[in-house]
Amino acid sequence: MNASSTPYAALDERIGAINDVLNAASVLVWDSRTMMPAGGAASRGQQIATLTRVALDMLLHADTARALDTAEAAAQQTAPEDPRRAMVAQVREALELHRRVPAALTQQRAALRTEAQAAWIEARARSDFALFAPHLKSTMALSREHADCVGWSGHPYDAMVAAYEPGETAESLRRLFAELRAGILPILAQARARPPARRDFLFRDFPEDGQRAFGRWLAAQLGYDFQRGRLDSTVHPFEVSFTREDVRITTRYNRNFLPASLFGTAHETGHALYEQGVSSAYTRTVFATDLIGLYAVGGTSFGMHESQSRLWENHIVRSRDFWRLHFARLQAQFPAQLADVDAEGFYRAVTHTEPGLIRVEADELTYDLHVMLRVELECALMDGSLGVADLPGVWNETIRRDLGVTVPDDARGVLQDIHWSTGYVGSFPSYTIGNVTAAQLMDSLRRRDAGLDEVIARGDYAALAGQLRDAVWQHGRRFTRDEMLVRSTGRTLEAGPYIAYLRDKYAAAPH
Amino acid sequence: MNASSTPYAALDERIGAINDVLNAASVLVWDSRTMMPAGGAASRGQQIATLTRVALDMLLHADTARALDTAEAAAQQTAPEDPRRAMVAQVREALELHRRVPAALTQQRAALRTEAQAAWIEARARSDFALFAPHLKSTMALSREHADCVGWSGHPYDAMVAAYEPGETAESLRRLFAELRAGILPILAQARARPPARRDFLFRDFPEDGQRAFGRWLAAQLGYDFQRGRLDSTVHPFEVSFTREDVRITTRYNRNFLPASLFGTAHETGHALYEQGVSSAYTRTVFATDLIGLYAVGGTSFGMHESQSRLWENHIVRSRDFWRLHFARLQAQFPAQLADVDAEGFYRAVTHTEPGLIRVEADELTYDLHVMLRVELECALMDGSLGVADLPGVWNETIRRDLGVTVPDDARGVLQDIHWSTGYVGSFPSYTIGNVTAAQLMDSLRRRDAGLDEVIARGDYAALAGQLRDAVWQHGRRFTRDEMLVRSTGRTLEAGPYIAYLRDKYAAAPH
Repeated sequence: MNASSTPYAALDERIGAINDVLNAASVLVWDSRTMMPAGGAASRGQQIATLTRVALDMLLHADTARALDTAEAAAQQTAPEDPRRAMVAQVREALELHRRVPAALTQQRAALRTEAQAAWIEARARSDFALFAPHLKSTMALSREHADCVGWSGHPYDAMVAAYEPGETAESLRRLFAELRAGILPILAQARARPPARRDFLFRDFPEDGQRAFGRWLAAQLGYDFQRGRLDSTVHPFEVSFTREDVRITTRYNRNFLPASLFGTAHETGHALYEQGVSSAYTRTVFATDLIGLYAVGGTSFGMHESQSRLWENHIVRSRDFWRLHFARLQAQFPAQLADVDAEGFYRAVTHTEPGLIRVEADELTYDLHVMLRVELECALMDGSLGVADLPGVWNETIRRDLGVTVPDDARGVLQDIHWSTGYVGSFPSYTIGNVTAAQLMDSLRRRDAGLDEVIARGDYAALAGQLRDAVWQHGRRFTRDEMLVRSTGRTLEAGPYIAYLRDKYAAAPH
Repeated sequence: MNASSTPYAALDERIGAINDVLNAASVLVWDSRTMMPAGGAASRGQQIATLTRVALDMLLHADTARALDTAEAAAQQTAPEDPRRAMVAQVREALELHRRVPAALTQQRAALRTEAQAAWIEARARSDFALFAPHLKSTMALSREHADCVGWSGHPYDAMVAAYEPGETAESLRRLFAELRAGILPILAQARARPPARRDFLFRDFPEDGQRAFGRWLAAQLGYDFQRGRLDSTVHPFEVSFTREDVRITTRYNRNFLPASLFGTAHETGHALYEQGVSSAYTRTVFATDLIGLYAVGGTSFGMHESQSRLWENHIVRSRDFWRLHFARLQAQFPAQLADVDAEGFYRAVTHTEPGLIRVEADELTYDLHVMLRVELECALMDGSLGVADLPGVWNETIRRDLGVTVPDDARGVLQDIHWSTGYVGSFPSYTIGNVTAAQLMDSLRRRDAGLDEVIARGDYAALAGQLRDAVWQHGRRFTRDEMLVRSTGRTLEAGPYIAYLRDKYAAAPH
């Protein structure tokens, strides 16, 4: 039986074509953020929307349903662990989900997104929540409607978060976050009780060329394959892939704040290593694309993806060992700017913690508190227990309670994030889940390989990459996040290792 | 009646979406030639092929046929000059043509293209025509089969050339080329009888930065809008558009031969001015995309497109007036390299003519002879009057007869062009038609506006651009090439003005 006559051939061909279209959409997104001249914006949004709709049409086409029926019948004859079972199950799940959502609702949400984003931009510029409030109200109403179509049992938020973090629910997140909050707040208090480290040198003048040279070295050092990628500069850094053979990253060079590009590059490199590490056998399959979100991605959930960026950024590059070994190189790149600091001083400076107003500027120890606030509020907005009009007040109170800071205006408070204006309700939990997952994976790898830390301390990152490739990267979207965690750590997601890691780094360890 | 309830709305929406998909395919092509890392090639060809097939599927979809029926009925009620008539007629023509060509044949041709290109690359590297011969034989056989499906009356070549140059046939080209040959050969003889101009300075060391700076100035000077485009560097220069709002060009910097980037940039700028000048009302319509070739382009035929690149390159930038005015700027960019030459000397050097073996290196006066040779041979290959085995011999004889040069090997003879290996049979005539059309348009503009040359000589190119926008650019694909020529020059395509231009520049004028 040759390939084209297997019972999977027709489905493979259709899913392959959907992959092509979604990868193409991602090329257009990358281009729009890196290369496109200003005038191109006029048509680009529509081009990307058309490609996404074409992919959905292809998924919902009668030929796909027929091909899926045939493939399902064959997959039932395979062994329980056969990847074909997961493949057809994932296509079936996406197909049924999209069938439940009326096209008119999807169009309404897309139209609202355009309006709401424009309103959010203006509201933030004027720091006036009232300008955005009606759009947020509509966003929550349509999200609720969407959730009802998708289906939920415990809480309507469950249907939203499932698109980013399958398996999580409002209730599971409530439990996880309560444990995290209880763990993090005392560590934060201890860290804040110590005198702050010296940081002045981080704000000196670091020309972009030098930052770029060091960033390229850093990405390559961590294992990023430039033959299958490129590094550009953008205002908002990101990683994007068009199959594992072309995985691109961007970073931002802030001339007067060195950490932005340093750790930003490490972060995006972590995302890219995941995508470059997906098995080539999964290229153009459902294991390399998100048929629910209609987005070309090889990572299995937003949280698992974020775990890889956080792992490389925080556990590796923001470590004492890293700078003990590589600070001399950074100093050679910027001899004048870093003349009066040593490796330990540099490490302490970049491990500084300080509660602030802005999520994207938050340090490792306070970041999750920003996330928890948002998740709590978007749950309450969706179930109606919180009205949009009361949102700024609750936001400001919670930030004061958790972080002890006072919000001076909406722009630096409730209006700071783009997410709600784009309709991405339910994506915030993944940031924190990424942190938790990264620590759980590192903890488990260390337990299994006592020599791992020593190898990493020598600057050999290939062993770690190899273990992550085995445990996570190669599988693409074949397994869920928890399936992968159980396979590699023996347990589903748990907060313990992350809290222990934070305690070790910020409270217990000499600082 | 609002826009969405007009009898054209459904068709507009479908053609708009097809535009989006074909524009997206062009973004992927641009990226693959400018930005893509090496590894990306593995999937990119398939992504582009999928988008092209998706566009074809959308065109052949029953909904398109229904929408077209409705639009056609309404268009019949409009005035004869109403653009709606041309719109529906063009969609109808493309739809019927694609219906006549079996999908299996299109797949066979696509598969052969991949094989034939690989074979051609190897054959050219080894300079061994025998390695490519069987693939060329298949290419011609499948082209013949394709032509038979499309339909033809005089000669099977007519069906191929119609895809690039609607209205031209083997017979019309035979007549045009006979007249051109008779006109050009005596001019060439006269030009060759004079002592050659000094050219040594063109081959000096011209660093890329300086070439880039001058090229960017040049493109802007001719009217290229960088807000709606960008200029990059590639091995094979090209222009590509993703709507008129994003029209990109590339050029090649040869460090030891200044004219390559100078005139290459002028050439691609000419193509880009055409695309940037298409009426914004035609964006996402059939007037901004080639539904027969399934390629996003605003120009009405390959020849009309080429006329704009040749016009700006040859009539403007390769003119004595241009260098009289701008040589000082070039000299300021390269003071050492151009210290011992003046404007007249530079003009004479770049107007040098010398018969050679290679089409893409040929000067203005000998270029068309290369084209005529290829058209004559591909006609004969298609109708079977020339066998593939006899091709190299006939090639070498014809080149010797027309240009007096001896072909030393197949690589510099019959294997030099990529076209036949890609299945693009019938595209060569457009290069020469571009030259002829450019001269006819310039001749007519001069007759109507006696002051035009004086304005151009002052370095003001906006008036010329305005007239070309009125006569050609704005219309996109609304009119055929000959319809546009009749509207603006009062005559269909004719060789006279081109021969007169060449005589004036190369034979009659002091040299």
